Amino acid sequence: MENVTRFSVSVDKELLRELDQMCREKGYDNRSLAIADMIRAHLVEHRQQLGKREIAGSITLVYDHHKHHLQDLLTDLQHEHREIIISALHCHLDHDNCLEILAVRGKADGVKRLADELIAAKGVKHGKLTITSTGRDLPG
Amino acid sequence: MENVTRFSVSVDKELLRELDQMCREKGYDNRSLAIADMIRAHLVEHRQQLGKREIAGSITLVYDHHKHHLQDLLTDLQHEHREIIISALHCHLDHDNCLEILAVRGKADGVKRLADELIAAKGVKHGKLTITSTGRDLPG
Amino acid sequence: MENVTRFSVSVDKELLRELDQMCREKGYDNRSLAIADMIRAHLVEHRQQLGKREIAGSITLVYDHHKHHLQDLLTDLQHEHREIIISALHCHLDHDNCLEILAVRGKADGVKRLADELIAAKGVKHGKLTITSTGRDLPG
Amino acid sequence: MENVTRFSVSVDKELLRELDQMCREKGYDNRSLAIADMIRAHLVEHRQQLGKREIAGSITLVYDHHKHHLQDLLTDLQHEHREIIISALHCHLDHDNCLEILAVRGKADGVKRLADELIAAKGVKHGKLTITSTGRDLPG
Repeated sequence: MENVTRFSVSVDKELLRELDQMCREKGYDNRSLAIADMIRAHLVEHRQQLGKREIAGSITLVYDHHKHHLQDLLTDLQHEHREIIISALHCHLDHDNCLEILAVRGKADGVKRLADELIAAKGVKHGKLTITSTGRDLPG
Repeated sequence: MENVTRFSVSVDKELLRELDQMCREKGYDNRSLAIADMIRAHLVEHRQQLGKREIAGSITLVYDHHKHHLQDLLTDLQHEHREIIISALHCHLDHDNCLEILAVRGKADGVKRLADELIAAKGVKHGKLTITSTGRDLPG
Repeated sequence: MENVTRFSVSVDKELLRELDQMCREKGYDNRSLAIADMIRAHLVEHRQQLGKREIAGSITLVYDHHKHHLQDLLTDLQHEHREIIISALHCHLDHDNCLEILAVRGKADGVKRLADELIAAKGVKHGKLTITSTGRDLPG
Repeated sequence: MENVTRFSVSVDKELLRELDQMCREKGYDNRSLAIADMIRAHLVEHRQQLGKREIAGSITLVYDHHKHHLQDLLTDLQHEHREIIISALHCHLDHDNCLEILAVRGKADGVKRLADELIAAKGVKHGKLTITSTGRDLPG
């Protein structure tokens, strides 16, 4: 067991409750096993080599627009990368929650980096990059 | 901050090292933020099996708008399911290819069925449903 | 074609000449199509005085997203009136300036009031409400 | 009266009925006077010299997507002018009617010409070009 290490994590109480319920539903013996699996799944995705290929796609974000400075940060990031973002569609889900979908186009690695930055922003509850092609390299 | 709780996790040393490297590469301020994001992402996926749950998301399509009757078909389908589709963002990639992104919201199984129909339409080169949540059921 | 009727109009010769030139310049196939479009456009405007009528339209805003608290204010206003706003299209014009276009739908007076509030927000450089109809009350 | 000429117009019966009602409500003595006023109003707008100035804005269209070939025509036009159109927001108002809003940017005369073509397309019930600026030439 000398390869195992221990660290502590701080999260919202309610989120921990939901994690534990999911662990039970998925049949995990303990939380650590579930979290190790999550980390591995994210590593696999993260390592996908996307390179310099021209791609199109969408970045889908859900966030609470009341979070301090969050919207400023997201808009700043988007303006800095406006050569990648065609435009953004913003839907007001309820009093607090926003669904924001960015139509993106550019070199795969640049798009991925932008998506990572947006999704990592504190207050973004969930985000996903969906990569498709610009259609040119896909025969009808 | 009384909503935050702390717990400890045991994982393989090497896995922790890789996690920390990914956190840096993705721009997270600390490990807890990254792990909270992973938990939320897995909760969203886990809940997708729950058919009647209210979800939000996007459907990303790439197609050649010159394909006979394709656009008529896609628009007909969209109008028939306008209770699910908040609106559609259409980007003109080049002379032929369209990137169309639908912002959607509704019961998971209905959204999935609509996505399947749109993606299966002859002439749609690539399509993907990205499911997220309406934000309400995802703790900060 | 039994829904089409024919009537005659008397106008100044010079005005007719100018009308025909404008029709050519705008690309109309014939005078009747142009005049039908004018009638519909005037009907739309005429009905705007009718406060409770259901309308559709767009609110176009240009603003500098760096202005303190401006984006928070605009988003708050939009979430409070999300029964009117279908969704918002946000384009990043340059490092500072945003073009934001809201697709709106609702009772004319409510839409007008929301537009007034958004346009009056300190930092919005220019804004405009474009009222059209929901299509149902405009014969072909 | 030798300056007056007479021509005939074909429009939808229901549209003529609505025209006559508007004429009464506005206090016109006859239909010809009302139509002459409309023509003059459109000439004034049409003649606005917009020139080569860089503008941003929106084109708002309402149309019935069931009209034969209309959507193909609108999409063809948009792809041909994709250097002007940032993207298009499409809202499904009811089973038949679409609200489509294009975010546009470019030289004023090119944008105006594109708007004229789209609005003149047979089956577009109502359309409007809203011109604003790119923000750069408007001091805060």
